[in-house]
Amino acid sequence: MIEQLRRERPLVVCVTNDVVKPFTANSLLSLGASPIMSGEKSEAADILKHAGALLLNIGTCTEDKIPLYEEMARCANEYNIPVVLDPVGYGASAFRRNLTDKLLGEYDIALVKGNAGEIHALSGREAVSKGVDSIIEGNTLDIAKDAHEVLNVPVLVTGEMDAYADGKEKMTMHNGHKYLEVITGSGCVLGAITAAFLALENKSDSIADAVSLYNIAAEKAARSATGPGTFAAKLIDEIYNFKTEDYNARRVDVHE
Amino acid sequence: MIEQLRRERPLVVCVTNDVVKPFTANSLLSLGASPIMSGEKSEAADILKHAGALLLNIGTCTEDKIPLYEEMARCANEYNIPVVLDPVGYGASAFRRNLTDKLLGEYDIALVKGNAGEIHALSGREAVSKGVDSIIEGNTLDIAKDAHEVLNVPVLVTGEMDAYADGKEKMTMHNGHKYLEVITGSGCVLGAITAAFLALENKSDSIADAVSLYNIAAEKAARSATGPGTFAAKLIDEIYNFKTEDYNARRVDVHE
Amino acid sequence: MIEQLRRERPLVVCVTNDVVKPFTANSLLSLGASPIMSGEKSEAADILKHAGALLLNIGTCTEDKIPLYEEMARCANEYNIPVVLDPVGYGASAFRRNLTDKLLGEYDIALVKGNAGEIHALSGREAVSKGVDSIIEGNTLDIAKDAHEVLNVPVLVTGEMDAYADGKEKMTMHNGHKYLEVITGSGCVLGAITAAFLALENKSDSIADAVSLYNIAAEKAARSATGPGTFAAKLIDEIYNFKTEDYNARRVDVHE
Repeated sequence: MIEQLRRERPLVVCVTNDVVKPFTANSLLSLGASPIMSGEKSEAADILKHAGALLLNIGTCTEDKIPLYEEMARCANEYNIPVVLDPVGYGASAFRRNLTDKLLGEYDIALVKGNAGEIHALSGREAVSKGVDSIIEGNTLDIAKDAHEVLNVPVLVTGEMDAYADGKEKMTMHNGHKYLEVITGSGCVLGAITAAFLALENKSDSIADAVSLYNIAAEKAARSATGPGTFAAKLIDEIYNFKTEDYNARRVDVHE
Repeated sequence: MIEQLRRERPLVVCVTNDVVKPFTANSLLSLGASPIMSGEKSEAADILKHAGALLLNIGTCTEDKIPLYEEMARCANEYNIPVVLDPVGYGASAFRRNLTDKLLGEYDIALVKGNAGEIHALSGREAVSKGVDSIIEGNTLDIAKDAHEVLNVPVLVTGEMDAYADGKEKMTMHNGHKYLEVITGSGCVLGAITAAFLALENKSDSIADAVSLYNIAAEKAARSATGPGTFAAKLIDEIYNFKTEDYNARRVDVHE
Repeated sequence: MIEQLRRERPLVVCVTNDVVKPFTANSLLSLGASPIMSGEKSEAADILKHAGALLLNIGTCTEDKIPLYEEMARCANEYNIPVVLDPVGYGASAFRRNLTDKLLGEYDIALVKGNAGEIHALSGREAVSKGVDSIIEGNTLDIAKDAHEVLNVPVLVTGEMDAYADGKEKMTMHNGHKYLEVITGSGCVLGAITAAFLALENKSDSIADAVSLYNIAAEKAARSATGPGTFAAKLIDEIYNFKTEDYNARRVDVHE
């Protein structure tokens, strides 16, 4: 589906956190998508009109930006554009919990994506969050299934093994590299990439295609990296250089 | 003129978008200029007092930051410091159009710099903008000349062929590399670099020197890059390592 | 102490400037610490409750964010968590001076860290600041001792020779590389790294360990870098790859 993405060049509107903006934009450009970042509520309708997907990442959201997040979600729903929600640090503060719960409660969300700790907490299970990293060990598939049952939206849980659950499908994805855990925004960028795939016309397997592309690119990047700094630059290279046949390395298990 | 720039080390005040701040600051430092970023209106006069140029990039501007942009422009005009305006995504929303039109209408702007789609739209021509990328094909020189005629300010249009027009001079610049189109902020950084050159005392050929330096550095960086991620890092290296004799690769055409 | 840091994995809350957020987060992750960035006042208590240190960097602070800085400092003091203050561009504007003076006057600060120009100005000495770079030449140890005497808080002054002074100890640190001066945020990142070391239990030599680790990593990174762009990526690699025996290259002088 990467060839289709490069042909359609979907516009992905990113309302994302301050820490990951350059990495997110560069990943989308390398992928072949067209990113736009905005912090201005009054332009939501204008820029979403031509968009293929909306990414809402709450990483550095503040009280005064909540109307922005809501207006973006409202316009995306009105135009029937898929919304990917990344509840960064859910569990780290009441502010993040309340914001996420409000967005999930009041708007149609096409995908919730987070690490094990965030999604575990989202399900109402007790979870201790230390910063924006997860300290939950255990089966990401169980966490995804559990969250889908509680929230009734498609859920992607990232970790050493990534897991996805919606009403029809459950799967685990096994590509990736440990360096992804020591670069900031690696999860946030995956959220942006899934948004780009969800923007395509006549899509199928968007999630597996997005996650596998990113993780296989990471495996390739790690081969010549000497640490997480050079890895991050080479990851962008490998997203750009990704070819359909690179999907041959894909390791995805579909579950009952 | 690069030796002069490294001697004078001009202070460039950057009021720019959130996505490109690190890349912009690193490019200016590598060039030999001294960047300062500010989002605080009340310090405009203090920091512009010692400045050589002001960059206004509207990429992630919001309603509440308009007074900041205006106060920065006002102080720069008062101190007679050149202002470079980058109307990122002009055409993507009414908010961006109104802000840009206001800045162009009320302050002295030394240079407007944008891609073909943005500048085409600025001239009042119909243009469809998809995100912050341009989808206008065609002659950037015509677009620059047209915009200069309508706006009566010097105009730089970026693209595969960069073009410049003011009341006296028209030129096209032919260096560069396709990777520049797949890294975020490559145009924004060029805006910052032109601002640094415009800050010099007794300047001439600032635009051609700035654009050519950047594009020749890009050509050199691309030689050992394996994709846009490593390219971006090497571009900073090549700006830093740029020598006067590297200008020998310059391809600039002056037009009637 | 790097092994201890990787075991304890301290949570470092960063209220820092927009230009250096990705670099700061990546440095802390590579180091083995756990960063969280926040711009929301109402979550200060929640996220500081589990934190090991707070970094306050005023680089792109604005009037409306002052209550955020104050609430973060107040909570950190309440929980007895060390606060590192980086008064970026002190001297460049009245706004920056007033904000820094307020934070120093009203909260317990564990460390003030800045370049020679910033710290010189902080001591009430006349200083000319050109952007956020220092143009003060001279002995950083004298500047540190002087500032400590005036402010009565531990002071770290960065430069070609880094210097530290508190009530008990005075030292100079001699590792590093000139590329650190041409990448944005190199000083800001050092502030974050010292915060991570100050977060450790039963600590000693935190400052020398933090500064030396960073500067030795820089020396190693510079060996294979071709300029400041590749250097920045390799610096992250070398922080990640840093081993206890790398401290053998440490050059620290303790002064009377």
